[in-house]
Amino acid sequence: MNNVYFDNAATTPMRDEVIASMTEVMRKNYGNASSSHSFGRSSKSLIEQSRKTIAQYLNVSAGEIVFTSGGTEADNFVLQSAVKDLGVKHIVTSKIEHHAVLHTIDQIEKEYNITVSYVDVEANGDIDYKHLETLLQTEKKTLVSLMLINNEIGNILDIEHVTNLCKANNALFHSDAVQSIGHYEMDLQALQIDFLAASAHKFHGPKGVGFAFVRKNSGLQPLILGGEQERGLRAGTESVHNIIGMEVALKSAYANMNKETDFIKKLKDYFIDKIVKEIPEVTCNGESGNLDKSTYTLVNICLPIPPKKAAMLLFQLDLKGIACSKGSACQSGSSQNSHVLTEILNDTDLQKPSIRFSFSIYNTKEEVDYVIDVLKAFME
Amino acid sequence: MNNVYFDNAATTPMRDEVIASMTEVMRKNYGNASSSHSFGRSSKSLIEQSRKTIAQYLNVSAGEIVFTSGGTEADNFVLQSAVKDLGVKHIVTSKIEHHAVLHTIDQIEKEYNITVSYVDVEANGDIDYKHLETLLQTEKKTLVSLMLINNEIGNILDIEHVTNLCKANNALFHSDAVQSIGHYEMDLQALQIDFLAASAHKFHGPKGVGFAFVRKNSGLQPLILGGEQERGLRAGTESVHNIIGMEVALKSAYANMNKETDFIKKLKDYFIDKIVKEIPEVTCNGESGNLDKSTYTLVNICLPIPPKKAAMLLFQLDLKGIACSKGSACQSGSSQNSHVLTEILNDTDLQKPSIRFSFSIYNTKEEVDYVIDVLKAFME
Repeated sequence: MNNVYFDNAATTPMRDEVIASMTEVMRKNYGNASSSHSFGRSSKSLIEQSRKTIAQYLNVSAGEIVFTSGGTEADNFVLQSAVKDLGVKHIVTSKIEHHAVLHTIDQIEKEYNITVSYVDVEANGDIDYKHLETLLQTEKKTLVSLMLINNEIGNILDIEHVTNLCKANNALFHSDAVQSIGHYEMDLQALQIDFLAASAHKFHGPKGVGFAFVRKNSGLQPLILGGEQERGLRAGTESVHNIIGMEVALKSAYANMNKETDFIKKLKDYFIDKIVKEIPEVTCNGESGNLDKSTYTLVNICLPIPPKKAAMLLFQLDLKGIACSKGSACQSGSSQNSHVLTEILNDTDLQKPSIRFSFSIYNTKEEVDYVIDVLKAFME
Repeated sequence: MNNVYFDNAATTPMRDEVIASMTEVMRKNYGNASSSHSFGRSSKSLIEQSRKTIAQYLNVSAGEIVFTSGGTEADNFVLQSAVKDLGVKHIVTSKIEHHAVLHTIDQIEKEYNITVSYVDVEANGDIDYKHLETLLQTEKKTLVSLMLINNEIGNILDIEHVTNLCKANNALFHSDAVQSIGHYEMDLQALQIDFLAASAHKFHGPKGVGFAFVRKNSGLQPLILGGEQERGLRAGTESVHNIIGMEVALKSAYANMNKETDFIKKLKDYFIDKIVKEIPEVTCNGESGNLDKSTYTLVNICLPIPPKKAAMLLFQLDLKGIACSKGSACQSGSSQNSHVLTEILNDTDLQKPSIRFSFSIYNTKEEVDYVIDVLKAFME
């Protein structure tokens, strides 16, 4: 078997209908959405329709969706402006966030006179909610930034609890929801979160586009200045084809969500059952082995392989045509341990190789069988 | 005649081969370029090939090309980091720059303790080079930001002169070259410019991608933080299809440049000849009527129409299926005068309507005839 793609948390194959819609837009709708003539209006109308569609799925108003070049830009935009323009003096986050959040906060901390607090992380990868509550007992204007689904271990944040804690303590709440949007439904009216970041290529859409949800009258100011695009919140000619691709990908995700969730969940279940049977000493990192407490899209396993042999593991999997990852794609090329696993594993487990397998509708049980066969053979 | 697109300075239709290459990449190369497995390496190899191609055309090294979400982001990245990270205390620019430069500088001026000087602009739209030289007589670390081709009036900067002035006075030089890249050849080894911004959709490539040229060892730091993409200078999963689209668009531009330049130049020439014949009181703004001193892609004309009637002009042109613009697309929806024309026209001419017509290889003489007929009829 060749080309088993089990790295869907890094990025996903695009759906056919997404590519088709983008190709059509590229052919027919080349107007600049800021131009007032018919070519421009037609592009403008397409992106405003996309904005409405996306807003409806999240139960917010269209004006609260700001298109960006991706999740990373959305995180940067929200975090930087919260400090520069909203007077935030204290950021609460965790050490297991995505680098788009952690590195941005590092930079902000250096540049502005703010305090950064890291909420404790439990051995299972959940944040310590009691500690979060303590950190919120402050007079300083505070922003909490915690991801909804951890991209490496799949733990799901108790977002309702965090939102309530933030409300009760007058803190703003931003969530990197890149692993969640397009995989789980969200009602942002019910959930009084302030800001959220999403990325199209994580749900079978194009790379290079995403959005920030920015609650009305937030006072946020742009990271990228110039023209008056995105109601003045993000300058630059809109990438019409990418935005339409994101809309179509989200539409397909919502139209098929129950069916596809069920399919992928069963695949993950099958993977875990089988690997535990075949390699009994395997353990799942974080809550990724628990289908109720982690996303159905990924599992992160720790393999009982001695360090010397472990060094060859990813290489061997790659040779066998299997795509998976040590952690987030951003650091997959590096020899360092995952910053997430470093926070939650003990020293013994940290010495063993951990691998994230992440699934999509395009995977099959046969692929799971093959991957586990290869893993087993490698260990013998 | 319907759908005459004379707004190619706002954005251009995409070439067929660009769309085809992007569609293929979207189908086949969905790996995240930061992933170390074969899917990732294949995407990485595509974007690194694009980087090399683009670098070769500009005669620079691949590491000096940083992919961005467009020209606006590239301008923001260079300008903000020059002040934050390179210790620039003084920016010299002009009042006729694109808003991506002007608004970014406004914001930087508010946020950091720097001085901004505006070089005088002559009535013909050229900057006053003597004044620029005077402004460079300072002990403060200075960055000059002047666009290579003005997007509204087409004036071409004497970039060699400006580069030499900057070198002689130890100033850094950034140029928004969005209207130039893909239309004119540039040799950035011969020309010791420090930074440059470009955008794919201005040369028949996709919207939502561009690049910054950043000379080696500049010390620039990223605007968008997170993963280690773009050698640490721009975080965020690379938009592989958009980058490949930009590469293919630039390849086609270079392969056909002489022929296409000649074609468009003749079209502009024909437009000017004919309109001067048909509407003798017309004048060309800036140097846009002078084929030696302005870009061959656009002309900006001032029409002898009384204000009351003028208000209907763009509307009428639009009704007749003609796409053109008052100035840059970013402000085409607004009722304000162009900030560029405000700087160079006298009060009488400012009262008259000015329109920018900008051409591409997809236009024809018949379209020029039609547009001039419509203009003439409107004036009667």
